[in-house]
Amino acid sequence: MTTPIAPVTGESYHTQHSPFGAFASFTIGLVDAPGGFGQSLRGPARQNIYIGFQNGPEAPWQLLPFLTPPKSQEGAFTGDTTVVQAPRGFNALRPADYQRTLGWASDTWRADQGRFGFSLLSPFGEVPDPAKMKRATARFHLAPVIAGWIEYDNRAGTSPVELIFGVGNGDDTLRPLGDTCADLAGFAGGRKFGYATAPGRDVALRQGFDVLEPKFRDYRGLLVIAGESALVFTVPAGKKRRFPLVLGFYAAGPVTTGLESAYAYTRVFTDLEDVLTHGLAEFARYEKLAARRDRELARSKLDADQQFLLAQSTHSYLGNTQLLWSKGKPLWVVNEGEYRMINTFDLTVDHLFHELQWQPWAVRDTLDLFSRRYSYRDQLGLSFTHDMGVNDFFTPAGRSSYECDEIDGCFSHMTMEQLLNWVLCAATYAAKTGDKAWLRANKKTLLACADSLHRRDHPDPAQRDGILKHDTSRAGHGSEITTYDSLDVSLGQARNNLYLAVKTLGSWVLLEHAFRDLGLKAAAQDARATADLLARTLTTKFESDTGFFPAVFEQGNRSRILPAVEGFVYPLYLGYRDAVAPNGRFAALFAQLRRHIGQALQPGICLDAGTGGWKMSSTSTNTWFSKIALAQHVVRRLFPEAMSPAARAADKVHADWQRRPGCGRDAMCDQIRSDSGESCGSRYYPRGVTAYLWLDE
Amino acid sequence: MTTPIAPVTGESYHTQHSPFGAFASFTIGLVDAPGGFGQSLRGPARQNIYIGFQNGPEAPWQLLPFLTPPKSQEGAFTGDTTVVQAPRGFNALRPADYQRTLGWASDTWRADQGRFGFSLLSPFGEVPDPAKMKRATARFHLAPVIAGWIEYDNRAGTSPVELIFGVGNGDDTLRPLGDTCADLAGFAGGRKFGYATAPGRDVALRQGFDVLEPKFRDYRGLLVIAGESALVFTVPAGKKRRFPLVLGFYAAGPVTTGLESAYAYTRVFTDLEDVLTHGLAEFARYEKLAARRDRELARSKLDADQQFLLAQSTHSYLGNTQLLWSKGKPLWVVNEGEYRMINTFDLTVDHLFHELQWQPWAVRDTLDLFSRRYSYRDQLGLSFTHDMGVNDFFTPAGRSSYECDEIDGCFSHMTMEQLLNWVLCAATYAAKTGDKAWLRANKKTLLACADSLHRRDHPDPAQRDGILKHDTSRAGHGSEITTYDSLDVSLGQARNNLYLAVKTLGSWVLLEHAFRDLGLKAAAQDARATADLLARTLTTKFESDTGFFPAVFEQGNRSRILPAVEGFVYPLYLGYRDAVAPNGRFAALFAQLRRHIGQALQPGICLDAGTGGWKMSSTSTNTWFSKIALAQHVVRRLFPEAMSPAARAADKVHADWQRRPGCGRDAMCDQIRSDSGESCGSRYYPRGVTAYLWLDE
Repeated sequence: MTTPIAPVTGESYHTQHSPFGAFASFTIGLVDAPGGFGQSLRGPARQNIYIGFQNGPEAPWQLLPFLTPPKSQEGAFTGDTTVVQAPRGFNALRPADYQRTLGWASDTWRADQGRFGFSLLSPFGEVPDPAKMKRATARFHLAPVIAGWIEYDNRAGTSPVELIFGVGNGDDTLRPLGDTCADLAGFAGGRKFGYATAPGRDVALRQGFDVLEPKFRDYRGLLVIAGESALVFTVPAGKKRRFPLVLGFYAAGPVTTGLESAYAYTRVFTDLEDVLTHGLAEFARYEKLAARRDRELARSKLDADQQFLLAQSTHSYLGNTQLLWSKGKPLWVVNEGEYRMINTFDLTVDHLFHELQWQPWAVRDTLDLFSRRYSYRDQLGLSFTHDMGVNDFFTPAGRSSYECDEIDGCFSHMTMEQLLNWVLCAATYAAKTGDKAWLRANKKTLLACADSLHRRDHPDPAQRDGILKHDTSRAGHGSEITTYDSLDVSLGQARNNLYLAVKTLGSWVLLEHAFRDLGLKAAAQDARATADLLARTLTTKFESDTGFFPAVFEQGNRSRILPAVEGFVYPLYLGYRDAVAPNGRFAALFAQLRRHIGQALQPGICLDAGTGGWKMSSTSTNTWFSKIALAQHVVRRLFPEAMSPAARAADKVHADWQRRPGCGRDAMCDQIRSDSGESCGSRYYPRGVTAYLWLDE
Repeated sequence: MTTPIAPVTGESYHTQHSPFGAFASFTIGLVDAPGGFGQSLRGPARQNIYIGFQNGPEAPWQLLPFLTPPKSQEGAFTGDTTVVQAPRGFNALRPADYQRTLGWASDTWRADQGRFGFSLLSPFGEVPDPAKMKRATARFHLAPVIAGWIEYDNRAGTSPVELIFGVGNGDDTLRPLGDTCADLAGFAGGRKFGYATAPGRDVALRQGFDVLEPKFRDYRGLLVIAGESALVFTVPAGKKRRFPLVLGFYAAGPVTTGLESAYAYTRVFTDLEDVLTHGLAEFARYEKLAARRDRELARSKLDADQQFLLAQSTHSYLGNTQLLWSKGKPLWVVNEGEYRMINTFDLTVDHLFHELQWQPWAVRDTLDLFSRRYSYRDQLGLSFTHDMGVNDFFTPAGRSSYECDEIDGCFSHMTMEQLLNWVLCAATYAAKTGDKAWLRANKKTLLACADSLHRRDHPDPAQRDGILKHDTSRAGHGSEITTYDSLDVSLGQARNNLYLAVKTLGSWVLLEHAFRDLGLKAAAQDARATADLLARTLTTKFESDTGFFPAVFEQGNRSRILPAVEGFVYPLYLGYRDAVAPNGRFAALFAQLRRHIGQALQPGICLDAGTGGWKMSSTSTNTWFSKIALAQHVVRRLFPEAMSPAARAADKVHADWQRRPGCGRDAMCDQIRSDSGESCGSRYYPRGVTAYLWLDE
């Protein structure tokens, strides 16, 4: 193996290649790093992946650098510990040796002047409501499989070229799939994951302690006690060949506790072999679907950096999706990246725009589960939990996995934040899909939400100004926090918080529309009046001396934050023009926000002085990509004049953060140090799909 | 944490604490090392285990050293990567601070002048045939649970003492069991493993990033997103208290391929909660069973080193047992330690003596599966495969996972060895249990085995001398090997091999008895004649100049091996006096073997010149504990005069090998370097139960 002489400084990032709803990923891409099949993991798996070509039998294998030098297990059998030999005879390609192209639903590597190609496809599309899916539809949409191909153009060649796709599972062994299914050539790790192609004359199985040079072969040329396995394809001289690959997962039986459930796909697939066979049979359809998505993104107005960011985000989102089946019904979960919290509500509200496009029933079902099981009443009224559990464990009704008592800062309660999230998701879902029946069924809940919002402002109506001023009693002597808990106090504290206040404004605007749709005239009028009151209150918080809003209306706080405008994304998305027109009903507030944002998007304030990346807060170097993307959308649509050249140039900065190992070692990362581009939390994270909003610009 | 100043040189070893047939272990004991719950693993798990006491609220926790300094996951949530704090405020006890006692079915630690105690019980006993078990019997014998207790004698204390038993699962989180089962106080990793005690006033649950000092507590004082969990017990001043613990496993649904099967216990237990509740309900019975075994071993004639070796071996054997259910019937598996090969036949023949005592049906069922699915015919007749697969994958009929073609040495075929193993296991099983019906049902197979043995000597009867001289055609241009494949050629080669020849002799002796029991007079007579012929042939191989047998009757080999006498263990075990009496029918051979063994058991020959440990071969430093134990038994029973003081002193050497990290880091190890005591293969291994024979001395 060619040891890299210098650390890789260029492009080097993992991407999650994932079926829909399987909470599973095949992760590769980071240079000189393992990856591979991971089920329900909080980060990349640790398998060595062998992908490459051998240009004639004497040439060394040229492999994409998705492995660390493996340690042969041979010595454990022979008792000879003096010789521990790593597979030899290959070159790990350097990033300069290959081109990688991440599409919306594909990831393709080319090398050897384009003759060698390898691609993984994660096709996604509109998924119908699983509660009503027919079997064939369910098999297509829910198959826990991803497709791929490997190819070589040997038309100019004079000797056969071999291609390899393999997995080194180190301590563990894989089994040849042909033993249980004659239609599959490939290997599986137990009953849980595997890869295959169609059997054929030009496909061979390889297995050994050193998969590139197996020393020991059983009656069929394999060695099933050894941890390395591969498919080897032959491309004759003068030919160009592309071979299909399918990579599948299968997790049988109940997988969760608290709410017991199994994967929805287990209703229509019997086992891994069924999944892989299906993947090969439907290969063309999956390929077509992926190509359609790739085309859509490529033809969008987004520039290359933005396209990359949306593509990478969508891949990690898919890897965190988990469609379960509980008590005869679908149970939708998005897991929270490395934390694996279940349906964290502050993520649901950000996934909203992507999900309303591709699977709106997911939003609805999640809202229903929040109101049915994960709602509670404190001294001020209704709210919802931060999440529904963690790591396949559903917490008891009315309780999240995250929220603790008697503390300030991280791990405290997010009562107001989640109340707003239910309102915003519910009203946006109903308005966007036109699901009037659902809206009607949730009339009481919406009214209770409005009442709860009022009382969190002030229990005494006469003292209300629209801004949250009362923390939940659940926090005890502690303080309520917001989703931005890990930033400094400028975004962490819920009371008197600019970000939450504008989000509250957005909620009242949506409530007004929802109540009107429900024929609740008085409630609609009250919502409208409250929005106006809150907007007026907000204008009094503006610092005319600095031209900024403070992040917190307390104790002389002077942090400057970009999420000041986050709350406008909902009326903007729903086309409520009156609420988002510069000269509309909130004109005075808009003028102040314009000044705020224009000043904030300057180097040293909310553009990092060193890197130029967007910062959520002027006083924290912890910034979150998902929220940058959302803020970018709102600013470009509502405050375009704030997009200075410096602010505009940041897409490349944000893309580079994700493309380099500082984030890329954990696929899509959300919490990033703005001064270094290093991830500091929220790795392997689904939330970046807020970038989906960019397609609406 | 007190960092150890010097590496531990004394006692430091892992032990597998395992239910019967669950292929699962809770492994602890190695100093300053993690361990914990492992399902189907090839070595110890990597959980931090918190076991200890706190003598008053201001005192530091005193913990057994079963952890590495854990890294708090807190920073991943708070985004604050500058503070990564390891749990503080505890002392990891040094080996000098505690006493450990390994019993046959228990492992107990005492500290603080005996006031603190912790014990894990792995009760085992006679297990009835699972095919005929009633539900209640099955629940008792097959429960995938181990019992334990933690105690403190605070009768002289003036302030309460707290006790802790906890698990830090690092990356992963555990869930509080009370949410799904009110009768359990404890935690579970998903649906797969967990620990519990009975809820009570003096028991508290703890969970946090730092379980010793949790900073964040939810409504019930837990933090379910954090990876560390524990039970904390309070012992009031003036009281002595012992608290029961149960540690359980559950693997649902099909777990194997090739032959599809699920764990037998899943037929009588619905889930992990059921297992743990049962464990607490039946605690006293399990405790009693463990105590009975402990007593038996303690009262045996074995010295302390021998008792330790048998206890440690039995623990690892249990950890490798796996009772499955396939097509309506039990399916018995012993996994091969770190290699996880299924029912490796050269292990079955060594587990024989233990299994005929505790679960004779296991021997019968394994033999049946070998003859039904894992037998084959080569050019010379019937034989059996080396194993039935690997890592929960059953290989195709007639094929092992291990045996490769066209090679010499490791990974070649073991046709003769396995043929002998079937004969020896079958005849020993039938004779010991008196299962005549089974013997009759296998008459044809036994006759075919005899025929195959003859033909492997020579296809032409006139040229036979009793010794294997013809390799299987399956080896191709390679050579057949023996179970001792990883030693040097002195034991690896099958043809003209002393060890195999004596084992063949033992087989003919047993065949004679079996054929007689079957009323097959001619066959019995033939077997007797063949044994006599073989014994005579062997006497001609003796080197009268050196007083040794050569290990291989070829090419001037002069290696000296202890397994020269291994083949006599079977007639010895069955009490076939005539065959094992010094002045019996093999008197001439016995006299030579006595000289051979007496000379071999000298330092520099088959006693390691440096350590004094027994060596299988004079020309290899790779020695195997299981085979040492077997050889010791045969030598002590049949050649007692060979037991020189040096040979006798070796029990302590062998025990020290296992008690120290060179082997102890992987619980029971079989392949050991005789010059260093370091394991060089066969770790976490079941085969050491050959030491069960010592109880028969």
